[in-house]
Amino acid sequence: MSQHQNVAIVGVGLIGGSIGLCLRKRGMAASVTGVGRRQQSLDKALGVGAIDRASLDLEAAVAKADLVIVATPVGSVTDDVCRAVAAASQAQLITDVGSTKGVICHAVEERLAGQRHRFVGSHPLAGDHRTGPEHARGDLLEGRTVVVTPTATTDPAVLATAQQFWHSLGAVVRIMNPEEHDRALAATSHLPHLVASALAATTPAEWLSLAATGWADTTRVASGDAELWTQIFAQNGPAVSEALDKLLQVLGKLRTEIASEDWDSLRDTLLQAKQIRDALGN
Amino acid sequence: MSQHQNVAIVGVGLIGGSIGLCLRKRGMAASVTGVGRRQQSLDKALGVGAIDRASLDLEAAVAKADLVIVATPVGSVTDDVCRAVAAASQAQLITDVGSTKGVICHAVEERLAGQRHRFVGSHPLAGDHRTGPEHARGDLLEGRTVVVTPTATTDPAVLATAQQFWHSLGAVVRIMNPEEHDRALAATSHLPHLVASALAATTPAEWLSLAATGWADTTRVASGDAELWTQIFAQNGPAVSEALDKLLQVLGKLRTEIASEDWDSLRDTLLQAKQIRDALGN
Repeated sequence: MSQHQNVAIVGVGLIGGSIGLCLRKRGMAASVTGVGRRQQSLDKALGVGAIDRASLDLEAAVAKADLVIVATPVGSVTDDVCRAVAAASQAQLITDVGSTKGVICHAVEERLAGQRHRFVGSHPLAGDHRTGPEHARGDLLEGRTVVVTPTATTDPAVLATAQQFWHSLGAVVRIMNPEEHDRALAATSHLPHLVASALAATTPAEWLSLAATGWADTTRVASGDAELWTQIFAQNGPAVSEALDKLLQVLGKLRTEIASEDWDSLRDTLLQAKQIRDALGN
Repeated sequence: MSQHQNVAIVGVGLIGGSIGLCLRKRGMAASVTGVGRRQQSLDKALGVGAIDRASLDLEAAVAKADLVIVATPVGSVTDDVCRAVAAASQAQLITDVGSTKGVICHAVEERLAGQRHRFVGSHPLAGDHRTGPEHARGDLLEGRTVVVTPTATTDPAVLATAQQFWHSLGAVVRIMNPEEHDRALAATSHLPHLVASALAATTPAEWLSLAATGWADTTRVASGDAELWTQIFAQNGPAVSEALDKLLQVLGKLRTEIASEDWDSLRDTLLQAKQIRDALGN
């Protein structure tokens, strides 16, 4: 289990807060400082025990940190990581938790070109449609996968520290390059979100009272924060479009099968989908 | 609370079994006879206490029933209802629980044209992706909506008996005509199922291990029985196509917004979806 003196968590929402709670519960850090832009969020994070210090000043808060986790919305991650890299001279590891990796990792690399740095990108696959530190849970990462996305210029020691860190929180680490991560997440997370939102948006209001568990399950993620998700789509547009095109092809095929009453083909698609879904379990 | 001497349930799956359990737990029937085509399902239903008698002979089982519920797959409902109407000379109510209503109600009406009969269609909105009497629950209908779909030829006394019956199981009754029911359910249930299946079917196998709760929720219904759902699509094709076309229009719009980086419009759709989804709760 890795031990840290000073941990700084930039952005104390659901994920940042949960990491803080876990570190503090397991006694893995001498201090956990939360960095935010609004005192209100920091107070909430202090209140639930996710952090023990709070700061509105990123540079000051990370100056003595040996570990920095940037858990801000993906649209802010690049800037926050570069600021942390510049200010956290003692850090062994600076990582983020953003749902996209290509744009972030390459922008950071470009901005820090030639400099020795201690950043590697991460993405814990443990989101929730709820946000905010009030929903933080110390066991949020227990048994979950964290994708870590090194690039050609990543220091192997930094990668090893990142793996060790996520393991110590109970997570399973998977190494992927940023592009593969983004294409995979487009299919497994970003497209489902887009489709759930489209389904919710097109359900006529007068029939919503007839929505049962099937509709509720299928559209649940549409409750996610619209601004956060817009940033995710903005950072992963091409991969999401590619996944969407594949889906549109299948939906077009199903549409033709319904129109031509080709129930055998339709049943085949439903069976194939059922086998894939059943393999995952509940 | 309505009291019945002899209740016959034709088809003892999840819904039929749950109705039986509820009737027996509440002491609402002197006897509940399950009718099936395979002794194995009937034995399971007997085993979980969903029925107290079992029969492979529909006509014999309904002959003395004062209430008959047909809970077979939608492709079999019309035949089973007509057989029950012919054989259940003492029944005050014959109803079904099929997820489609137009094809069933009008086919029954046509076949029984001119005859006085005691059938009215019902659809309890309380499905589950699991099937079989082993998942039956006595409280499955508690607080759920049951849509009852009279037509121009429905006897008002039969409609009243159906309302009373579903109320006595703890359900909320909503009256709709069969066509309106089918268009509403296409949007709130059948389309979500089709989309969930398409999503599951198009997720590349090598990335399934990255699927988290978002993917799991959005695709959960794809675990439903492929044959049952093919029958539902076969009976509600035009309404499902209509709902699918509306969805394809929105997905096409989202695709254009991503390609043209029109994040304001995309955010608007996500926000609209979130408001609709949030209104339902979990």
